[in-house]
Amino acid sequence: MGKSRIRRIGILTGGGDCPGLNAVIRGVTKPAQDYGMSVYGILDGFEGLVEGRAIELTNNDVSGILARGGTILGSSNKGDPFHWPIERGDKTEIVNKAEEAIKNYQTWNLDALIAIGGDGTMHICNKLVQMGLNIIGVPKTIDNDLDATDITFGHDSAVYVVMMALDRLHTTASSHHRVIVCEVMGRYAGWIALNGGIAGGADIILIPEIPFSWQKVYDKIHKRQLMGKKFSLVCAAEGAKAEGGEMVVKEKDIKRTDPIQLGGIGAVVAKNIEKNTGRETRVTVLGHLQRGGSPTPFDRILATKFGAFAIELASLGKFGRMVALKGNEIKSVKIEDAIGKQKLVQPDNQAVFAAKSIGISFGV
Amino acid sequence: MGKSRIRRIGILTGGGDCPGLNAVIRGVTKPAQDYGMSVYGILDGFEGLVEGRAIELTNNDVSGILARGGTILGSSNKGDPFHWPIERGDKTEIVNKAEEAIKNYQTWNLDALIAIGGDGTMHICNKLVQMGLNIIGVPKTIDNDLDATDITFGHDSAVYVVMMALDRLHTTASSHHRVIVCEVMGRYAGWIALNGGIAGGADIILIPEIPFSWQKVYDKIHKRQLMGKKFSLVCAAEGAKAEGGEMVVKEKDIKRTDPIQLGGIGAVVAKNIEKNTGRETRVTVLGHLQRGGSPTPFDRILATKFGAFAIELASLGKFGRMVALKGNEIKSVKIEDAIGKQKLVQPDNQAVFAAKSIGISFGV
Amino acid sequence: MGKSRIRRIGILTGGGDCPGLNAVIRGVTKPAQDYGMSVYGILDGFEGLVEGRAIELTNNDVSGILARGGTILGSSNKGDPFHWPIERGDKTEIVNKAEEAIKNYQTWNLDALIAIGGDGTMHICNKLVQMGLNIIGVPKTIDNDLDATDITFGHDSAVYVVMMALDRLHTTASSHHRVIVCEVMGRYAGWIALNGGIAGGADIILIPEIPFSWQKVYDKIHKRQLMGKKFSLVCAAEGAKAEGGEMVVKEKDIKRTDPIQLGGIGAVVAKNIEKNTGRETRVTVLGHLQRGGSPTPFDRILATKFGAFAIELASLGKFGRMVALKGNEIKSVKIEDAIGKQKLVQPDNQAVFAAKSIGISFGV
Amino acid sequence: MGKSRIRRIGILTGGGDCPGLNAVIRGVTKPAQDYGMSVYGILDGFEGLVEGRAIELTNNDVSGILARGGTILGSSNKGDPFHWPIERGDKTEIVNKAEEAIKNYQTWNLDALIAIGGDGTMHICNKLVQMGLNIIGVPKTIDNDLDATDITFGHDSAVYVVMMALDRLHTTASSHHRVIVCEVMGRYAGWIALNGGIAGGADIILIPEIPFSWQKVYDKIHKRQLMGKKFSLVCAAEGAKAEGGEMVVKEKDIKRTDPIQLGGIGAVVAKNIEKNTGRETRVTVLGHLQRGGSPTPFDRILATKFGAFAIELASLGKFGRMVALKGNEIKSVKIEDAIGKQKLVQPDNQAVFAAKSIGISFGV
Repeated sequence: MGKSRIRRIGILTGGGDCPGLNAVIRGVTKPAQDYGMSVYGILDGFEGLVEGRAIELTNNDVSGILARGGTILGSSNKGDPFHWPIERGDKTEIVNKAEEAIKNYQTWNLDALIAIGGDGTMHICNKLVQMGLNIIGVPKTIDNDLDATDITFGHDSAVYVVMMALDRLHTTASSHHRVIVCEVMGRYAGWIALNGGIAGGADIILIPEIPFSWQKVYDKIHKRQLMGKKFSLVCAAEGAKAEGGEMVVKEKDIKRTDPIQLGGIGAVVAKNIEKNTGRETRVTVLGHLQRGGSPTPFDRILATKFGAFAIELASLGKFGRMVALKGNEIKSVKIEDAIGKQKLVQPDNQAVFAAKSIGISFGV
Repeated sequence: MGKSRIRRIGILTGGGDCPGLNAVIRGVTKPAQDYGMSVYGILDGFEGLVEGRAIELTNNDVSGILARGGTILGSSNKGDPFHWPIERGDKTEIVNKAEEAIKNYQTWNLDALIAIGGDGTMHICNKLVQMGLNIIGVPKTIDNDLDATDITFGHDSAVYVVMMALDRLHTTASSHHRVIVCEVMGRYAGWIALNGGIAGGADIILIPEIPFSWQKVYDKIHKRQLMGKKFSLVCAAEGAKAEGGEMVVKEKDIKRTDPIQLGGIGAVVAKNIEKNTGRETRVTVLGHLQRGGSPTPFDRILATKFGAFAIELASLGKFGRMVALKGNEIKSVKIEDAIGKQKLVQPDNQAVFAAKSIGISFGV
Repeated sequence: MGKSRIRRIGILTGGGDCPGLNAVIRGVTKPAQDYGMSVYGILDGFEGLVEGRAIELTNNDVSGILARGGTILGSSNKGDPFHWPIERGDKTEIVNKAEEAIKNYQTWNLDALIAIGGDGTMHICNKLVQMGLNIIGVPKTIDNDLDATDITFGHDSAVYVVMMALDRLHTTASSHHRVIVCEVMGRYAGWIALNGGIAGGADIILIPEIPFSWQKVYDKIHKRQLMGKKFSLVCAAEGAKAEGGEMVVKEKDIKRTDPIQLGGIGAVVAKNIEKNTGRETRVTVLGHLQRGGSPTPFDRILATKFGAFAIELASLGKFGRMVALKGNEIKSVKIEDAIGKQKLVQPDNQAVFAAKSIGISFGV
Repeated sequence: MGKSRIRRIGILTGGGDCPGLNAVIRGVTKPAQDYGMSVYGILDGFEGLVEGRAIELTNNDVSGILARGGTILGSSNKGDPFHWPIERGDKTEIVNKAEEAIKNYQTWNLDALIAIGGDGTMHICNKLVQMGLNIIGVPKTIDNDLDATDITFGHDSAVYVVMMALDRLHTTASSHHRVIVCEVMGRYAGWIALNGGIAGGADIILIPEIPFSWQKVYDKIHKRQLMGKKFSLVCAAEGAKAEGGEMVVKEKDIKRTDPIQLGGIGAVVAKNIEKNTGRETRVTVLGHLQRGGSPTPFDRILATKFGAFAIELASLGKFGRMVALKGNEIKSVKIEDAIGKQKLVQPDNQAVFAAKSIGISFGV
């Protein structure tokens, strides 16, 4: 590869962690030196950009991290430079720290910044692009809800965890003739519940995009029993909605209970099923198991490709763009066109069709 | 093997399910025909013995079940023949159904019964032995709390699940500089938390046998932070006790909340840590994941050995005994000597010593 | 779903087994009854069609098979009705048994046949379609070399096995400063080696589509050593070609040695590396591990979708077609258009680009 | 823990790598600082001791290595100080480098050396103890053939790999009605084949301690076929012996073919079975997969305990001893009493009994 005029490149990981982040960091850092670039790893997402915390990354630093979950750079959910919380006495004030972020970018003599993150991260990137920074985005979400890319890394690994959990729960449910409810991630988009439920052999899948009828859920369990299937597995997205389109657990309550994951949809669904069907019912909340651990091959490969293409975009000076998978090809889209568009499960989705075909109920 | 006078043998699985039950069933059924015996699989534990539900088991029925979790015979937590609940109107009456159990044993012409289960199952066996049945017990517990056997199958598989979960949580915790609390099984005995915590690299382990000080838990998290470790993993047994020896979550509350696993120790510990250390804290409750799924090699091998030795005891007419692992040898003990003795983690246990050595805190 | 005029449907699995076959069988059988169809499972691929061996499949037969590798129907590599070997004395005569196949189809009163298999199976299907049978094809290949579908089930699971193996070999190679060669499947197409090698962190990938220079392979190993990396992992497809485009191991020799997997490319590459670099070198041949075992979520989901769409095509009377994944959508193509077209790794493939970016050598 | 007079401790890993080595290194290094000791990690086993290569190990170096296979210190099969090969022209001369080893030990001011390894390593340790070094041994072997300890870490992980492989091969074998031979490690002791074969559901197990009859092997395959089982799984230790007690593959040939694993017992057994039973037969050689990768919980826990007890022995000045598991307790034995005693599978072993009970043939 030819030498590029881009000499110093920054990289950060924003938002919740996700299997494959390290594979992107490796996929960026390894080729960088062939391009004659040095790589700065900015710590804890935009927090490190604002606070001026970074380390130089060499091949040695990224050696052996392909298989590791999480991010060696650290991440933070709080570090939006444009909405930076400062505690003054007992109040929290929100200030704008974008200038600090830009100053650090300049102090480090960065020619470009590769930002890996979800929709929130891309919103921040978009504003920084408008303020003149050379940014390339790499999309990340275990939820698979970014419209601008067909899929991204993290989702396949999350679905793998759900599948393995349902495989395990299946043996207990069938031995004890129980209903088991498995609560999985997905506040607005039901992809994890849909794909995990199909892969793990769930009998009922509840997702935000298809509001369900409580009665239909009970009916499905009864019907299975009549057919000699004395157990049922329910895979419920945390943001699933019941009749009328109301979330079963209000969004503010999901948020409020986040650190302790109590009273979530799994518990509510389990209680209602036990009360209304008389079947012994248990619940398992997978929680953070879904975002940790070693990535699947699909995620390792896609993340590596994304990293390699991001650094190529950088070398070509194509800034303000986000890499994306379109069909079988990796392309790039303008960051400003990529943000704010959520990809939800459509009713005519082929996975929904297949799920219904094999008898999975969505409670409708 | 010589022909035995024992011609018809029953087998049942009582209590909660556990990886390895099917391996025992296979380990009993396959040799039985060499002994010239036929095998009756009694369904849903003692419930099937009382209600007269059983199927004949042949080699084909047990082919391919070695790797499968759960029990092909079904189980039931409710089926104590001596305390049989009958619903009369809105009341539940407890009656004694032992005569029915014995009658079915006789109707099926059984010469012996192999009962696989935990301490509850062995108590029932003991009473039935005294009433004249030819019973051989096979111990089963994921909790590892049976004193009469050094270890039994199920525990290693449960520990494997905890280890895999902690491996996953580790990446998220370290990426986000969080505390993550992982709640595992163990109401009275802390073996799963102890072994799973060591294997999964926990920083703090809380078990019933070692009442912990809240302050010492917070101190450990602070101390780690001072050493540059901004995250901590806590592995808490559901029955862990705090200062004064009180269970953090009362036993009746563990029981009451069982179907919905709310407000368990994981949540309480997470809330307290977050409040008192200011560290972002999350909780994961492994729940039934710990008892489902394919057994580990250790459990498959031990369960197979137990099955083979149980059927040999039967062929020799050595009834009223339970197989047990003593050191490296499989032996048998009298069922009456085996029951009611719980094996708890002793303070001078070598695993506790090793855990402390490598810096794991028990909150003391 | 409306009742279809198709009442009796046959299903068979041809060619080598592959994770996901059972998921297709389940994906066909479960919806069939909603369509009012009965399903005949033809045993051992086309062998069963010629020899008239089949069993009726009900929901119970396909319950719990989603997670199981292999095929409950059995398969056979030998059963081409148009080239049917008959042993006469010490000679093998090839005869045409297509009439028998068609007669059995008619005797069973089949209205349609769903055939799951690779290119060989689809060739047979195409001839039978021309002779009037109502066939729907479902593509299957762990090699990912069917041009008519972007990908099919089985490949992701094979890549998973390669990745897990390389993860394991990595620790040994690095501890002992060794070169380890991992031989993987792929006689003509290098997809398994390419994707598995990227996912598993290989340093050198050798595939049939990119003939390699022995000297470049040795150079890469030397270069790594100079950089302080004293070990290297080589992922070699069994059909990899060296300079001049010759297969390192002749096709007839791969075939001849198949039952004993000796003298394959792994051994040849290892010997040459050890001789020419002086580095201690070991070889592992993954062999049939790559086609067995429980499918990954990707394969379970895709196979389920393929099954559901195949039965829908049947219900609509759309015969002579093969289901296929195109971009993100499942469509169908004419079987006659699907056959005989191999999808090879192109030099400008994005995975090859990404692999080179992160420093993986293809020996060129 | 009280301060010990031991201030500087060395640690090395000798012989073949094995899952759990890193857990021991961590288990030694973490407590060392509580004892007020500093830890020197000697590189590449005794090679580093002779050549004077070592690094200081701190808590940070051992953080996160619990789950990693291999050894962060590197190992070497060649580094026997008492038999040190030097190449002079085209000859290899063997010299004694023990003085260099001792000089480095003294130069580094070591007060004690913890050596982790198998029987070969312990032999070297024994000589060095006699020359005055303060050594504590930690036994390591995936083969489980050390008589002085009931079991050690590494074996359970190797058995896990064999089990997972047999689980995978099972689906292919049954789908294709084939015989599959799986060659596993074990030149003199058959523990891996025995335990792995039981755990993975093998039909035939061939081990060095029980010479097998070829005819009995063919008979077993025939017999299974008569019972409708058209496939068979054979688990063969590389050193298995046939009638007359001869190794099927001579020891010098195992050694000679080691780098390329050709013509091993798997291939020989497969060829003979195919020729004599007419059944299609395949072979898989697990090779180095058996010693790599993340350790199982059993191995992580045992290795951690061994590490913690080794450092305690050091602090107490109890040198010349090797830690060992006896029953359920970790004790120590004199190194001189531990060496040269191989633990073989005895004919009356309970695992052999159980295996035979469930119909596994040893070819006798």
